[in-house]
Amino acid sequence: MALKNIPDIVVGRLPLYLRALQRMHDANQTVTSSQDLAARLGISAAQIRKDLSQFGEFGKQGTGYDIEYLMNQLSQILKVNRVWDIAVVGAGDIGSAVARYQGFTDRGYRITMIFDSNPNKIGTKVGSFVVQDAAHMVAAIQKAGVKVAMIAVPAANAQAVADELVKAGVQAILNYAPLSINVPEGVRVQHADPVTLLQRMTYYLD
Amino acid sequence: MALKNIPDIVVGRLPLYLRALQRMHDANQTVTSSQDLAARLGISAAQIRKDLSQFGEFGKQGTGYDIEYLMNQLSQILKVNRVWDIAVVGAGDIGSAVARYQGFTDRGYRITMIFDSNPNKIGTKVGSFVVQDAAHMVAAIQKAGVKVAMIAVPAANAQAVADELVKAGVQAILNYAPLSINVPEGVRVQHADPVTLLQRMTYYLD
Repeated sequence: MALKNIPDIVVGRLPLYLRALQRMHDANQTVTSSQDLAARLGISAAQIRKDLSQFGEFGKQGTGYDIEYLMNQLSQILKVNRVWDIAVVGAGDIGSAVARYQGFTDRGYRITMIFDSNPNKIGTKVGSFVVQDAAHMVAAIQKAGVKVAMIAVPAANAQAVADELVKAGVQAILNYAPLSINVPEGVRVQHADPVTLLQRMTYYLD
Repeated sequence: MALKNIPDIVVGRLPLYLRALQRMHDANQTVTSSQDLAARLGISAAQIRKDLSQFGEFGKQGTGYDIEYLMNQLSQILKVNRVWDIAVVGAGDIGSAVARYQGFTDRGYRITMIFDSNPNKIGTKVGSFVVQDAAHMVAAIQKAGVKVAMIAVPAANAQAVADELVKAGVQAILNYAPLSINVPEGVRVQHADPVTLLQRMTYYLD
């Protein structure tokens, strides 16, 4: 499918649509509508139809969307009709929690390695992984061809880790460290610092 | 300060500005500029000036921004010049990790309670907290007047937990569960499902 230049904000909503469809599918629902999705997601039905129409004709007027078909299409668009290996950097509380997290299964990702620079952590187990020495990180990631990583190290080390990940060929970084990291053009970063998300809400509270 | 109706996307950038200023302040820097912030954040200097100008006149042409002053102003705007208590629901890997997370200090938040419904977890310790029985959650949150909560329970239970939190008076929810939760008007939700953030990036990868 040759894609036009889709706004990133639209791309950002597709995972929400896919997630809702997967939950409907798990509940043995086979058909849905933009209204049904809208009620679950708090996004207007018109917006959902408009977003999906940018990628193709997925629904029929009056009969709605075939859930399995739309799931498959969105999985393909989001490139999660395959499994991406993930390297986790930092075996502290957050890194360990994501390494143990069961929620990646069937959603396009699997953690395959975890690194730390603390000699007390190297060689210990986190879930089913042995924590590897961060000194060998670039070589290990390059060798495995891993393109996706999560940073869960203290703020002071996060930019240096990001630089190493980029050197190793990583193209997408989920950053849990509480600072904005700089990466070259072509590398994607999403920030998952819980405090910025909280502050975005308390602005509205009394 | 009487505020105009500020777009939520602008509000969402203020925590990034505050975070960058706090890091500069920690490094004993006293003055900054929109260009300096832009280089750290990957947001254009013009955008930063425009965002900040919606809230007041914080900088002087030619001399830039006084970091401490701007930090104080942004803290006040984001209402984090106080400390918000947080209730965490779910004492699994993610809930335990955020309960132990040290990164809330000086940023406007502190975890004060954690709940779970699993009898094997109730009464055990997570960091410095004793896991409380979720059956008493509504009463405990109401009594303490807690307005901010994090949901870290399995998807199947997340909506029911959200409904209880709303009943208890919670007005801001950070949701780690992998689904969109519905809340009444006036209650804020931010979603922190790592998979949706990852999918938003792999869309762009080959």
